Amino acid sequence: MSNVYVKTKHRSYYIHIEERDWKPFIIYLKESLKSNRLLIVCDDNVHKLYYQSIDIMLSEAKFDHDVVVVPHGEATKSIKWAEKLYTKAIDNRLDRQSTIVALGGGVVGDLSGFIAATYMRGIGFVQVPTTLLAQIDSSVGGKVAINHLMAKNIVGSFYQPSMVYINISTLETLSEREFLSGLAELIKYGFIWDYEFLNWMDDNIDKILARDIEALKNAIAKACKIKAHIVSIDETEQGIRAILNFGHTIGHAIEAATNYKIYTHGEAIAIGMIYETKLAYNLGLINRQYLDNMIFLFKRCSLPTDLKDVDTSLLMDKMSLDKKNKGGDIVFVLPVDAGEVEIFSNIDKDILEKTLAKGCE
Amino acid sequence: MSNVYVKTKHRSYYIHIEERDWKPFIIYLKESLKSNRLLIVCDDNVHKLYYQSIDIMLSEAKFDHDVVVVPHGEATKSIKWAEKLYTKAIDNRLDRQSTIVALGGGVVGDLSGFIAATYMRGIGFVQVPTTLLAQIDSSVGGKVAINHLMAKNIVGSFYQPSMVYINISTLETLSEREFLSGLAELIKYGFIWDYEFLNWMDDNIDKILARDIEALKNAIAKACKIKAHIVSIDETEQGIRAILNFGHTIGHAIEAATNYKIYTHGEAIAIGMIYETKLAYNLGLINRQYLDNMIFLFKRCSLPTDLKDVDTSLLMDKMSLDKKNKGGDIVFVLPVDAGEVEIFSNIDKDILEKTLAKGCE
Repeated sequence: MSNVYVKTKHRSYYIHIEERDWKPFIIYLKESLKSNRLLIVCDDNVHKLYYQSIDIMLSEAKFDHDVVVVPHGEATKSIKWAEKLYTKAIDNRLDRQSTIVALGGGVVGDLSGFIAATYMRGIGFVQVPTTLLAQIDSSVGGKVAINHLMAKNIVGSFYQPSMVYINISTLETLSEREFLSGLAELIKYGFIWDYEFLNWMDDNIDKILARDIEALKNAIAKACKIKAHIVSIDETEQGIRAILNFGHTIGHAIEAATNYKIYTHGEAIAIGMIYETKLAYNLGLINRQYLDNMIFLFKRCSLPTDLKDVDTSLLMDKMSLDKKNKGGDIVFVLPVDAGEVEIFSNIDKDILEKTLAKGCE
Repeated sequence: MSNVYVKTKHRSYYIHIEERDWKPFIIYLKESLKSNRLLIVCDDNVHKLYYQSIDIMLSEAKFDHDVVVVPHGEATKSIKWAEKLYTKAIDNRLDRQSTIVALGGGVVGDLSGFIAATYMRGIGFVQVPTTLLAQIDSSVGGKVAINHLMAKNIVGSFYQPSMVYINISTLETLSEREFLSGLAELIKYGFIWDYEFLNWMDDNIDKILARDIEALKNAIAKACKIKAHIVSIDETEQGIRAILNFGHTIGHAIEAATNYKIYTHGEAIAIGMIYETKLAYNLGLINRQYLDNMIFLFKRCSLPTDLKDVDTSLLMDKMSLDKKNKGGDIVFVLPVDAGEVEIFSNIDKDILEKTLAKGCE
């Protein structure tokens, strides 16, 4: 069992990382709550796999709990579903001492976190992420959000949970594509913060790909520690937190330009990291070897590395709408050294367009 | 001109109180913003009265601004209207440096404040309250919210503006009923914090009722100072801020039990304060004279003082749903001395029901 401590201005809490055992979850839950009234939110897939046994444990521990099952998939992160969850919270007479538990991936975590942040101006919130992406990224750091038809994650809040419980064994039921997508964000931590971690990933990639529980636990704990550290310095993204967006300027634009239908988030971010690194190479910020190592690692993880099927002018248009932009300038996080990135906001438009169209020769 | 400084953990800002002149508004706006892109939200009534001249001033000052006109009335504080405002924000390409300006009463302030708090996880927000209630209560202290069909203000956030601009002359166009409703919340500050202020109100009530600008300015500045002080100690209502809810436990229940159709918020709060004071009298917390003085003052302000048309059991039911409740107990703010209240959560149910049904003899 590993614990990662997250310390922010508004709330400090533990991420508990367990290999298989669910019993500690009930203990940590009791410790972190103000009252025993809970509303659990999970999607239909997760409900089938895990809810029955969790329900029994919660009942034995005398929790006053109910569950809302939402459809899996990004379309659930909607204003319509937010409204349904508010209704369910009122129906269950949740008050400011009550807690919403997100049991699932990023969609469930982001949606229920937004409800917890805004119902009665903020009630208790616990995350139980069950996908690799949620365990190392979306459940850590307090970003919660829902989508608007015209823009993803445009409605949201910074809202820290009071506890995060990661049970690694949930990754065994994850589809291969979803697991590999999570790897893209996992690898990102090496490029933005800790090149040693990339070397470790290189050495252990076969174990990781075989979903070895021990190797995954090490990698997840490392990723959570790096993210917790960055978030503790800059909770609301006034500065350094933005480095977590490496790969995301181009990655988000790829997702938007393809209507979120062709690539998973992790796949889009993988391509985004590669093309942002190509941009850095074309700008003379890093050498060719660095880029080649990245492409090689992503290929070993069966992640896409090429942008050839996406329209460049559409990408440029989508990037101009990015939340991160300042005063009209597109903001990029670009590698400048091994395990080090910097934030840029005045990139030459011609070099950017050329990179998107042709990569680098 | 008066300035009141509001200092909270998250943001500190000025409330500027001006008698008639709008020009300082433009100056303060420029000082408080990160970029010149604004979205102004106002209701149809306020739009007719003030927008044209403000629009000209904003254009002269080279603001990149647009306006959304929403219907007046509580029904606008809805999830549906929130969604429309998000769309308008996206259409106008508002980014994190942009600002939403609430020009109007509490409905416009609460709704646009919620949009500012949640669009891109928080953008700039300026309040220009044009009703007495908004000037002394809802625009100060950062509570923003929208309604759910089943519960008022149930979806919201704590979000401080970067500036509040009060132009007292806007009160001249307020309907008599709306003006008097505001007086109920104004008088509340005397009972919860400053009995001297009540004496001053007693002495100056004729001027206030005649909407004398100088008297109103004094009263509004005093109320804003008291609220700013309370909010600076306890921004997110963990403790003392709850005293601002004097009159609101019964008042909110009156509004809910009558479907928000019979009484304005101020009228319901006036009755609420009187019945919560009757409860305090029945519990032996204060003397009869204190209650009689309160009733006399409210009658001079033509505010309702009687509960006879509201069903007691319905009131009890609505009170059990109050956001302030803790672990099932109804929370009351009750007077215990001149200008002093305390928070109670274990009131004898029989005494409460008797008070609601019969007042005190």
